[in-house]
Amino acid sequence: MQIIDGNAIAESIITELTAHVSGFTKQKPVVAFIRVGEDPASVSYVRKKQKTAERIGIESRLHLLPEDVSKEALFEQIDVLNADTNVNGILVQAPLPAHIDETETFNRVTPEKDVDGFNTLNIGKLCQEDPSGFVACTPAGIVELIGRSNIETEGRHVVVVGRSQIVGKPAALLMMRKGLPGNATVTVCHSRTKDLPSITRKADILIAAIGRANFVTGDMVKEGVAVIDVGINRLADSSKKNGYRLVGDVEFSSVAEKASHITPVPGGVGPMTVAMLMQNTVRAFQAARHE
Amino acid sequence: MQIIDGNAIAESIITELTAHVSGFTKQKPVVAFIRVGEDPASVSYVRKKQKTAERIGIESRLHLLPEDVSKEALFEQIDVLNADTNVNGILVQAPLPAHIDETETFNRVTPEKDVDGFNTLNIGKLCQEDPSGFVACTPAGIVELIGRSNIETEGRHVVVVGRSQIVGKPAALLMMRKGLPGNATVTVCHSRTKDLPSITRKADILIAAIGRANFVTGDMVKEGVAVIDVGINRLADSSKKNGYRLVGDVEFSSVAEKASHITPVPGGVGPMTVAMLMQNTVRAFQAARHE
Repeated sequence: MQIIDGNAIAESIITELTAHVSGFTKQKPVVAFIRVGEDPASVSYVRKKQKTAERIGIESRLHLLPEDVSKEALFEQIDVLNADTNVNGILVQAPLPAHIDETETFNRVTPEKDVDGFNTLNIGKLCQEDPSGFVACTPAGIVELIGRSNIETEGRHVVVVGRSQIVGKPAALLMMRKGLPGNATVTVCHSRTKDLPSITRKADILIAAIGRANFVTGDMVKEGVAVIDVGINRLADSSKKNGYRLVGDVEFSSVAEKASHITPVPGGVGPMTVAMLMQNTVRAFQAARHE
Repeated sequence: MQIIDGNAIAESIITELTAHVSGFTKQKPVVAFIRVGEDPASVSYVRKKQKTAERIGIESRLHLLPEDVSKEALFEQIDVLNADTNVNGILVQAPLPAHIDETETFNRVTPEKDVDGFNTLNIGKLCQEDPSGFVACTPAGIVELIGRSNIETEGRHVVVVGRSQIVGKPAALLMMRKGLPGNATVTVCHSRTKDLPSITRKADILIAAIGRANFVTGDMVKEGVAVIDVGINRLADSSKKNGYRLVGDVEFSSVAEKASHITPVPGGVGPMTVAMLMQNTVRAFQAARHE
């Protein structure tokens, strides 16, 4: 059994990107972050993304807007960044305050700078297998983990548990696309699926993106399955300083006993999303500069 | 066993649309067709669409361009129709000559008038379950056939054979969406799938969109399956005046013996696509007029 080390794989991607970016002598890629309000998780995510950008040689800019910012003011900020030819990537950190529609906001970002891959046009391109689009960072990270772990996908049965717009569906579309990693037979399950264990037991590769702690247990998988656990759930744990521990959607102990490969939580898919964001930014830069 | 009568279902949709359109007293919906060259199948398809439009009370306009038309001239014609506020829907009949890229052409049509549902933005909206988009006519017709035949989809296992951009993938996304018809567990199979019969035998609903005559046989399905056959294949048949007969991707005789529902070819999915095009046109008209 092999534990897929998301930290190590993300680190090699960051090293590759650093070498790549050092070759851009005239200009460096620029990513702009917009953060609305002071949500502690958002503060921490954006800081992490900025730090990684800095390591790679990507310049980052941070635009802070107050929690009560109007939609118009937020969109004006996005428009300014859309028009700024020095900015290659724009990321509006979710969640946004309730008075601002997230889909509308993500669609305000011009598709060429939508390094988050949330713009409807980029989702359409993913479905059409048009490589000029940006793939959202979590599903892109899942595919990268599978590819770099040399897990064969062609003709194998991938079961995705979860049908969300940002993980389940794009991951399914990526795994069924023509090419590698891909060419898989793909089943998408969700809350309405009947007799879920009978389906997850068919999986050669299981992608769990349900958002329920320890949901997938050892009796639900077959021997030799490769497991990608996308869940990040907090479980109360008084032995921890902060009062909780992070667990995935997969019960690690029982599933690991049968798996050929498994991602841990934390340290699996999580670190990959930041690496994929950086990869998208470098791609946006190259597309804009025709490098 | 119930044969799903696509002609009859399409006819009831046309009757409903006719009643609906008769209520538009000030203006009528307008659909514009662009046909390039004289491909006999295209001539016949466009004529059929125009006839159906006329029956419903939708005005149709036909723009004929020569086979050797430049991309620029074709796009100029599309732009004129995009800008014409009296035109609600625009359909560029495929196939296009080899020197013109189809995806680029379909994306030239403004999404609000893309009644064919081929624009990348509308495909993205389908994936995002945004009902403001247009769904391509064949997958929309499949869902309508299932819904109007009262075939339950919630929690049932839909197996789609074929992963094309225009049928397999959108049909899969529609069947897994939140809502009805939908909420199904969905498996997408294709040419790289291993042991296809073991998967098709799990299907409560089988959607066959492979493009190979009589490919799905009785031994590949379980008792009680509902079968939607999207294939239209020509088989040489000297007993026919024109030298061929049309068959689906499903071997009708052997599969019908086990099926609860099955679409015939011709007379199944085929007639639905024209009806769905008309429905999209009426929707485009209503969205433009805010009726």
